[in-house]
Amino acid sequence: MSLNIALVHYPVRDKFGRVVNTSITNFDIHDLARAARTYGVERYYLVAPVDSQRDFVQRVISHWSEGPGQDLNITRKEALEIVRLVRDLNEVAEDLSQETGSEPLFVATSAKQLPICTSYADLRRRIENEPDTHFCILFGTGYGLDTSVISEIDLMLPPILGPTTWNHLSVRSACSVILDRLRGL
Amino acid sequence: MSLNIALVHYPVRDKFGRVVNTSITNFDIHDLARAARTYGVERYYLVAPVDSQRDFVQRVISHWSEGPGQDLNITRKEALEIVRLVRDLNEVAEDLSQETGSEPLFVATSAKQLPICTSYADLRRRIENEPDTHFCILFGTGYGLDTSVISEIDLMLPPILGPTTWNHLSVRSACSVILDRLRGL
Repeated sequence: MSLNIALVHYPVRDKFGRVVNTSITNFDIHDLARAARTYGVERYYLVAPVDSQRDFVQRVISHWSEGPGQDLNITRKEALEIVRLVRDLNEVAEDLSQETGSEPLFVATSAKQLPICTSYADLRRRIENEPDTHFCILFGTGYGLDTSVISEIDLMLPPILGPTTWNHLSVRSACSVILDRLRGL
Repeated sequence: MSLNIALVHYPVRDKFGRVVNTSITNFDIHDLARAARTYGVERYYLVAPVDSQRDFVQRVISHWSEGPGQDLNITRKEALEIVRLVRDLNEVAEDLSQETGSEPLFVATSAKQLPICTSYADLRRRIENEPDTHFCILFGTGYGLDTSVISEIDLMLPPILGPTTWNHLSVRSACSVILDRLRGL
């Protein structure tokens, strides 16, 4: 078994429902890498096709891994070691297949209740009990993953809810909570 | 019962163990307010004694509540409605006592295992079963709450752990996971 995550910057929706490419946020790089390391995620894919955005990610990573940052904060370096920068989800599938020898199982997340959801408890059990399955949890930036992504995935997780009807978590919060539900002690 | 949170910028520790005042981060304001709203937190106290930092918070809040931001993103306005800016933890205690008519119960969080911890399940049960208790969960920025804070609190939560020995979550992730453990459905 391996658990992997992907943060998708394209194709995602904006608030008008249009398909857009979002900007990469420095906090998303660090916060998700830290959560991923804490919960035993092996690879954190940053899915971003735009060159200027990819250059930004490389600059952030090299600052903390090889540049002046490496002596300032060792945990940033450790967290960023699992980041992989890719152009699209095909690259994620190819990379994971090459590394593990099998097709990954893609699991999408959404703040909306969509049909055919698995439960957190069921996915947690599958992660614990399927040594040959390589899971990749997809997170959308902006207003969420485009339907072209949703239609291609294997499983869907339900939205994260508390005791209110309000559920507008940041992707940083959502990713952390989902990893805790799947792998927290 | 009410559940409240406080994000402490002073007194906290830096990486050398010195007591410092940290800077307020825009992402902390929004991410914690969103998590708080999602999990039914009534008041989110930003504890910050430095005037220039407090001005920054006021500017962020008024941009999204009354300024040009209010028409751009209604959920930011809704989330920020529960933010209260205070100078120290005494002010938190006073405000909560005034609002609720009783002394709040302070619960500290830490990435280190400290003695006399309550479990997440036990605190969750208390929150569900004690209608007259007003809980306030404290989160430290920087390298965590100073011992002068820890020594004054009522309860302590254990660190958040996954299946690894690495647990360097951002305060945004930690707060989200802790609220989910205490109030998630």
